[in-house]
Amino acid sequence: MIIDCHGHYTTAPKGLQVWRDAQIAGKNPGALEITDDEIRQSLEGAQLKFQRERGTDVTIFSPRASAMAHHVGDAATSLHWSQQCNDLIHRVCSLYPDNFVAVCQLPQSPGVPPDNCIGELERCVNGRGFIGCNLNPDPSGGHWTAPPLTDRYWYPLYEKMVELDVPAMVHVSSSCNANFHATGAHYLNADTTAFMQFLTADLFKDFPALRFIIPHGGGAVPYHWGRYRGLAQDMKRPPLDELIRNNVFFDTCVYHQAGIDLLLKIVPADNILFGSEMVGAVRGIDPETGQYFDDTKRYVDAASGLSPADKQKIFEGNARRVFSRLRR
Amino acid sequence: MIIDCHGHYTTAPKGLQVWRDAQIAGKNPGALEITDDEIRQSLEGAQLKFQRERGTDVTIFSPRASAMAHHVGDAATSLHWSQQCNDLIHRVCSLYPDNFVAVCQLPQSPGVPPDNCIGELERCVNGRGFIGCNLNPDPSGGHWTAPPLTDRYWYPLYEKMVELDVPAMVHVSSSCNANFHATGAHYLNADTTAFMQFLTADLFKDFPALRFIIPHGGGAVPYHWGRYRGLAQDMKRPPLDELIRNNVFFDTCVYHQAGIDLLLKIVPADNILFGSEMVGAVRGIDPETGQYFDDTKRYVDAASGLSPADKQKIFEGNARRVFSRLRR
Repeated sequence: MIIDCHGHYTTAPKGLQVWRDAQIAGKNPGALEITDDEIRQSLEGAQLKFQRERGTDVTIFSPRASAMAHHVGDAATSLHWSQQCNDLIHRVCSLYPDNFVAVCQLPQSPGVPPDNCIGELERCVNGRGFIGCNLNPDPSGGHWTAPPLTDRYWYPLYEKMVELDVPAMVHVSSSCNANFHATGAHYLNADTTAFMQFLTADLFKDFPALRFIIPHGGGAVPYHWGRYRGLAQDMKRPPLDELIRNNVFFDTCVYHQAGIDLLLKIVPADNILFGSEMVGAVRGIDPETGQYFDDTKRYVDAASGLSPADKQKIFEGNARRVFSRLRR
Repeated sequence: MIIDCHGHYTTAPKGLQVWRDAQIAGKNPGALEITDDEIRQSLEGAQLKFQRERGTDVTIFSPRASAMAHHVGDAATSLHWSQQCNDLIHRVCSLYPDNFVAVCQLPQSPGVPPDNCIGELERCVNGRGFIGCNLNPDPSGGHWTAPPLTDRYWYPLYEKMVELDVPAMVHVSSSCNANFHATGAHYLNADTTAFMQFLTADLFKDFPALRFIIPHGGGAVPYHWGRYRGLAQDMKRPPLDELIRNNVFFDTCVYHQAGIDLLLKIVPADNILFGSEMVGAVRGIDPETGQYFDDTKRYVDAASGLSPADKQKIFEGNARRVFSRLRR
């Protein structure tokens, strides 16, 4: 089985944006008006078609990351919006239980301690079958006003994650800072930033069972693995392999062969989860290969020197380990 | 000849910090008290020793990047500090004219348009032999409050750079945002951010002769080259090779063989300048190789498939083209 750990509902029917626009305009958005047929239509020509064409089986599926926009409105805005988005994901997964498994958006809000996310996380995981959450290290959308992920500020949420046995993908949303293009800078910067935070603190001594996926192939990290090994050594921190072993994982959302080759060569196979971010940041076909840039399965399949056992871990085993509720 | 395009005076005699501490404390720091012998001592056991041991010839040398700290004090603070740092670099290059060529720090200050840097840039370049500058895209030190590098806000400085025929290395300083470790996150994020800014705007149509070096191997960019090619294509921007050709260059400050191999494979040889950031971010010896992490010449020498012509470009030719005043 091939599990894609990183998919967002980027093709949601327009009723979702209508609801959000009304909410932002301060009008009563009422009930979300999206039919099951509209949901089917939004997926059949996109995610489901690509699953079939590319030979992947299941996508771990969450609301559109760029639309989380935690910086819009206040904590109540964020809660109501998260509930709509998560309920829609639940409908997707109920319609296609063999193709999608749900991960939730959290109702984060700048300046509001993440304790406020516990209720929505419980609502999604208990009874609705969600198996993880997306955690935004920068709810301000590019101003980076929250404490680092290793700060005790986040601990109540981590306690709940451990109790529920769910991991988080570290995933920022859109940027309202003109310096940061969302998918071309903000996303990758957040990945790099989170990794260095994890490297410099003892978070996983406090939470040995806490698990994070750093998406987009870990931002800049594998390319600069020597830098990080050297920094860890200079700072008397544990070796990287040991530091990340049971707690930090990278996906394979790297859109060219040379990048995937580096990732697979450098990062232990136990810490890599197959992901494509399909349909997502890059939608075109690579003229150099004639294939979609985000068809990352091709790169993993073409990587030389990957043992069948490691390939199985990357395509399936690690996802089952990290998203442990997937087994249930 | 082997030219290292990226060295900072990280080993400056303690008199420099004494001066800075007095300045920050609001006391009159007086004249900088550093003797020529102290300068010699600070270099003989460090940069000069490593040049000899590693077989490099000349280092393009600038003040310590993390100490620029443009966020400290106001524009006058920044100007006086920059003058001291640049004068000290000038003394280094006068004592060792065969080993070091000078690049200056700019007196940037948060919220102050970079027009205020023109005077110091002219002072350094005209008559003192400086051949480039370090430009901080985030003088706030991790709050990212300045406009993107492609904004007209920066144009007066760019006009002067073109007139003087000097490039800039895009280099942030220390971070006063707890989210960003300086050398492990802030530096690499700035590199990634700057590249995406250049990708999305027509800056080089306005300034065809403007040249930027993006250090630290281009941050996350080469590892995510497919993502950037795809984003450029989706956004109807020019192909990356064309977009960067005469204007954007990466150094080789990537501290392991696999990273350098990726860089050399992916980025055109015309756009890579040898650099080591020695003595800099990572000071230890890699237990996997028994060599210094930042001995990047070894990785370039060991890279397979690099033609002698391309190697000459990376070690010397490109530096002479980008730092065109080096020839004089």
